[in-house]
Formats: sequence, structure tokens, C-alpha cells
Amino acid sequence: MKQALIFDVFGTCVDWRTGVANEVRRMLGKHTDPLLFADYWRGRYDPAMERVRSGGRGYIRLDILHRENLEESLDHFGLADRLNEEEKSELNHAWEKLPSWPDVSPGLQKMREQYLLGPCSNGSIALMSRLARFAGLPWDAIVGAEIAQDYKPKPEVYLASCESFNLKPSEVIMVAAHNSDLFAARDAGLKTAFLPRPTEHGAGQTIDLAAESDWDFVATDFLDLAEKLGGTSA
Amino acid sequence: MKQALIFDVFGTCVDWRTGVANEVRRMLGKHTDPLLFADYWRGRYDPAMERVRSGGRGYIRLDILHRENLEESLDHFGLADRLNEEEKSELNHAWEKLPSWPDVSPGLQKMREQYLLGPCSNGSIALMSRLARFAGLPWDAIVGAEIAQDYKPKPEVYLASCESFNLKPSEVIMVAAHNSDLFAARDAGLKTAFLPRPTEHGAGQTIDLAAESDWDFVATDFLDLAEKLGGTSA
Repeated sequence: MKQALIFDVFGTCVDWRTGVANEVRRMLGKHTDPLLFADYWRGRYDPAMERVRSGGRGYIRLDILHRENLEESLDHFGLADRLNEEEKSELNHAWEKLPSWPDVSPGLQKMREQYLLGPCSNGSIALMSRLARFAGLPWDAIVGAEIAQDYKPKPEVYLASCESFNLKPSEVIMVAAHNSDLFAARDAGLKTAFLPRPTEHGAGQTIDLAAESDWDFVATDFLDLAEKLGGTSA
Repeated sequence: MKQALIFDVFGTCVDWRTGVANEVRRMLGKHTDPLLFADYWRGRYDPAMERVRSGGRGYIRLDILHRENLEESLDHFGLADRLNEEEKSELNHAWEKLPSWPDVSPGLQKMREQYLLGPCSNGSIALMSRLARFAGLPWDAIVGAEIAQDYKPKPEVYLASCESFNLKPSEVIMVAAHNSDLFAARDAGLKTAFLPRPTEHGAGQTIDLAAESDWDFVATDFLDLAEKLGGTSA
């Protein structure tokens, strides 16, 4: 196959907010609001990666950043003593148990007839491979941050993912529900595809509700994208 | 999943000799003996990797080593002028078109119910992901040489593969039809499983016909291994 599709995962393929809240509810339900906790935990995500991107610390897998951010989140909600080490570790695996949006698995099955498929996520190989099992994501290889030893939106992450498949950036389409991800991918020379996930952040979401540029493909969901891509590759 | 199986691929999962010979026959059939050519080409494999392992040159993907070895093989058989650059590139993709032994796909489908699965091969991510499509190998992630930026049997390759799955070496079983691969994996702390591929090198094969040590598992093929592993993991 001469072309690949690479995907943002958290938000684009899977509903991280519902998935994380489910695990928080299971393990801490009486003591906190699961959605608030999920939002706070996720809110620590970008600042933690920024310390790596800026060179303030070397590459550290997202699993470890998630765990550090969990400690901060438990502290913030006054729950630090509610979980022992083993339980914290178990809760940290919430990021491997995120449900995919209903169109994702059937859409990927259709797209894999013509393209190599891989996640271009900030998640590690360990996280992405287990999440793929849980959420039904038929990847050909786990590319993305760990391969590049850096975090999106640094261009190295997109470029290393193309290189792993032995393809030029122009032979790879980055698929994301986040305009910022696509601006970075386009700057690195990749093609781009946008689809909205209007409830990623809940009912009151105000960002990424529509395409903010003339992306190569704009679709309503993965099934629509599969149809729009049909016949464009070999 | 708390354990993984990682696999040697060339020989153990796929019949490289038949597959390469098929492509040689298709592209050079009138001009050479396809099996002799395949054996010669494969014979350049280990010396080429040894230059990387010994530090004589930096990590270079197997695709490129295969291509260099193809040039040498064409020279050796007096065929350097028979193929243009595009045809050489096409023939080099022979390594992505290798048939799996008949027990491999059904055996892997059974084993993936209990284990994460990945190739621990000297092949690159690009090669392994395309070969997986051709041969029906349901990997969770492509680990192995490219992740480690070195070649087996260096311990780094086995250890990086375990680390990619966030598992300890003792939580990972290396599966191979080559005793030497298993000696190296065991030295790195992994568990081991052997099964013979008595026609990998053709009807007159004299090596690796049987287990040469007390490997953790010894099986007749992947289906037998799946049965022997049944109930040993979670």
C-alpha cells in the first residue's frame, strides 16, 4: 500500500471524557464528580507535555505523565488518601479503556481496504496497543509520539510517523477532530482530514465544532470520511 | 493484558524462501534459479546486520540492507543489467510478500485472546506492517529492531520490545524456530518457546530441527503452542 492514514486518538477516535469518568466513578464515585475529575486530569495533559516539548525534561511516556497528573488531580480534589498505590495504578489504566465513537470501528475497517492505518497520538505504544484492543482500532503499526520521542504538535512526531511507514509526508493523511493538530500536520507537509466531535468536551463544547481551514477532506464522521476517500488511493 | 508474546518472523511465521523465490521467478525467472537466488540474497542478511551490531555503521533499516544485498546478489549472478531501478525496488518488496505457514494465522488468533502480540524481528516497521497485511499476522504493535535501533541477537532488541509493551522481560515469551534467537532472548530475561520449521531452508535442512535447550515451551506448530499456552496467562 502506497498511502497511509494516521489518526489523532483521544477525542478523534475515542471518547476519553466518558471513558475516564467511568473509571473515576467506579473507583471514587462517592467522593467526587467523575466528569469534573476527568476534565481536571485531562487539563494537566498539555502542560505536562509542554515541559518535554520545550526541552525542560527528556521524553517521558504519556503513561507516566498521566500518573503524575493523577497525583496532582487527587491532591486537588482532596482525595490523595482515598487510593493506595495499586489502586492509583489501576485508575491510571483508565486511559486504556476509552470507548470509541460508534462510527470509528466500521469506518476504519472500510479505510483499511485502501490505506495503512496508524495512530499518530501522544499516547505510548503500551497505551495505544491496549486501547486498540478495548476500542476496536485495527492499526497496522503504532506510530506517533513514542516513535518520535517527542510530543505533538512538534513536526517531528508527524514526520517520524510517515517515515516509519516509509512514506513521504505527501503520501500520508492526518485525521483529527482538532484544527490545531491539522495546522501542525499541514505545516509538516502531510495531507489533512477533519471531522467534528462536538461532544468531546461535553454538551457545552465551544471549540472545534467546524473546520477552520480548507483541509484536504472535511467529513461528518469516519464513515463519511471513508466514503469521501474511496477511490482516492491504491 | 499482563503478558505478551513476541515472535521471530522470517522463518518462524513466514516462509521467506518460497516467497522471495516466487518474486524472483516472476521478475527474473528465465535468467536464474529462483531458490538459489533467494538463498544467496538471504545469505547476505546476517553479515549486513553484523556491521550495524558491531558499530561499524549506525542503524539502517533492513529494507535498505535488503536493497544493498539485492545489488550484490544481482552482481553475483551476472544480472545487474536485467533490472532497472524501478524493477529493483519492486523486487526488493518481495520481503513484504511472504506466505505464512498454514498454522500461523489461526494460531495467532487463538493466542491473541490471552496475550498482546508483536513481531520481534529484524524487519522494519514499514516492512513488518505490510508483511502483516499480506500474511495475516494480527499484531498489536510492531516492536523489534527499529524500536531498538539495533539488530537481534543484541539484548537491546528483546528488552526494548518488552519495554514498549510496558512489561518486564519475565512477562514476555519470545517465540522462534531458531535456537540461537531463544538463547539470546533467555539471556535477556525473557521466557522462550520453540517450534521447528523443518523446511525453512528447503528439504535438506540440517539446523534447528529440534529444541537444543529446555525452553519454557516446545511445540510442534503455532496451534500446538496456543494449546500449550492456554490457561497460563490472563
